[in-house]
Amino acid sequence: MTTTLSMLESHPRRADVDRTRLAAAIDSLNACAETCTACADACLSDDEVAALTRCIALNLNCADICLATARMLSRHAGEDGAISRSMLEACATACRACAQECARHAERQQHCRVCAEACYSCERVCRDLMVALR
Amino acid sequence: MTTTLSMLESHPRRADVDRTRLAAAIDSLNACAETCTACADACLSDDEVAALTRCIALNLNCADICLATARMLSRHAGEDGAISRSMLEACATACRACAQECARHAERQQHCRVCAEACYSCERVCRDLMVALR
Amino acid sequence: MTTTLSMLESHPRRADVDRTRLAAAIDSLNACAETCTACADACLSDDEVAALTRCIALNLNCADICLATARMLSRHAGEDGAISRSMLEACATACRACAQECARHAERQQHCRVCAEACYSCERVCRDLMVALR
Amino acid sequence: MTTTLSMLESHPRRADVDRTRLAAAIDSLNACAETCTACADACLSDDEVAALTRCIALNLNCADICLATARMLSRHAGEDGAISRSMLEACATACRACAQECARHAERQQHCRVCAEACYSCERVCRDLMVALR
Repeated sequence: MTTTLSMLESHPRRADVDRTRLAAAIDSLNACAETCTACADACLSDDEVAALTRCIALNLNCADICLATARMLSRHAGEDGAISRSMLEACATACRACAQECARHAERQQHCRVCAEACYSCERVCRDLMVALR
Repeated sequence: MTTTLSMLESHPRRADVDRTRLAAAIDSLNACAETCTACADACLSDDEVAALTRCIALNLNCADICLATARMLSRHAGEDGAISRSMLEACATACRACAQECARHAERQQHCRVCAEACYSCERVCRDLMVALR
Repeated sequence: MTTTLSMLESHPRRADVDRTRLAAAIDSLNACAETCTACADACLSDDEVAALTRCIALNLNCADICLATARMLSRHAGEDGAISRSMLEACATACRACAQECARHAERQQHCRVCAEACYSCERVCRDLMVALR
Repeated sequence: MTTTLSMLESHPRRADVDRTRLAAAIDSLNACAETCTACADACLSDDEVAALTRCIALNLNCADICLATARMLSRHAGEDGAISRSMLEACATACRACAQECARHAERQQHCRVCAEACYSCERVCRDLMVALR
């Protein structure tokens, strides 16, 4: 278990949404960022790298966007609904594109199979949180 | 002058938009990220820090989002119009919120005055690029 | 449980160290980065923010350095012992400085208590991995 | 010209080193981070990608490490000589490894030639600043 929930519980401000749900979303975003970073590197090390270049670039984008989203959701001192919603939308879009590309390679590349699942799951988390924040 | 344009010119793929414009957008995003990082720290070091906490958090969000956007725009191997547009939208939103908050402190805090200008300018760059990418 | 270990196990290259240990180190670094990001924001939202500014800046540095270290350790395609050792040294240094500062506030600020533990634990992980990589 | 120097001049704290030099170092680190991000993507898009995978991974590491170093140098509220020196050492190491790898491809890949120069120059900047900070 991560300390994300303990940190939210000791935060002086109350979050706009249920803390357990928010902590789970932040954990999912950080896990997806790490998985995409690892998938990009596994693709780079693959004999079939030439067929995986689009996958690598989408992995790198998804990692950076998930990370920026997790950090933003961890900052309540400057909470701004418009920023949260638009970043969650961008993040869901990046996760979906990366999931779809990874899914194309899931049969041959085990790392792409794991990564596709992480990205689909993270896309859902983003979309659910957008609804909860409305 | 940065080497952003030289790098775009030596890239094997042609970008979807005019390279000079794209290089200028990437430079503006990176400059805004750096300015927001510096403004957050100047606010932290200010005698009036208690009045600047929202500004600091918006600075930190804006820095992370501008940076992720600059990196995404630098990656043509996985170009995806939907990701680009939604990130530019999120980035413009974050820049505007940060610019407005910094502008409130611009008379007393010189660093907020410089940062407000950088953020307003970067918001415009994002919106112009969204139009060009359509 | 995170998918860090599954990703290492599906990576085409064998890592230089035991995979279970490496996965645990990456998870610890990512968790510490998230905890420091959250601690900085909790400090910003604290009534006593003026006494916590050094803590906030050290949190922000520690978050960025842990994250860059986790990403580097996730990349085996360009493995380079000299980079790994020097980043782990820098990361251990940043974790220790942040842990010591958070520990000073641990009695009054619960978030600093949790963060001090995360940073001390991450410092140990970095130092142990430096030995294992030698 | 960037606004890095204006931001340093409006910062409430005096930096430990000459501001013009520090601003130039931060600009060099941010420029190197951007150049490495762009070089990784140009390599990915290259017909010879299979020969460039080590270059790509070193580019990605160098980009993340330069960026974390630029951010740390922009934060004076938590200035800590030990962190600065160890990060500058790690950054110089990453820049040199990336420069050497890019230099191997500089004759065939124009983007690697530009990137090698940016990395060698950034390594020098890090080493000079380490001396100045002593």
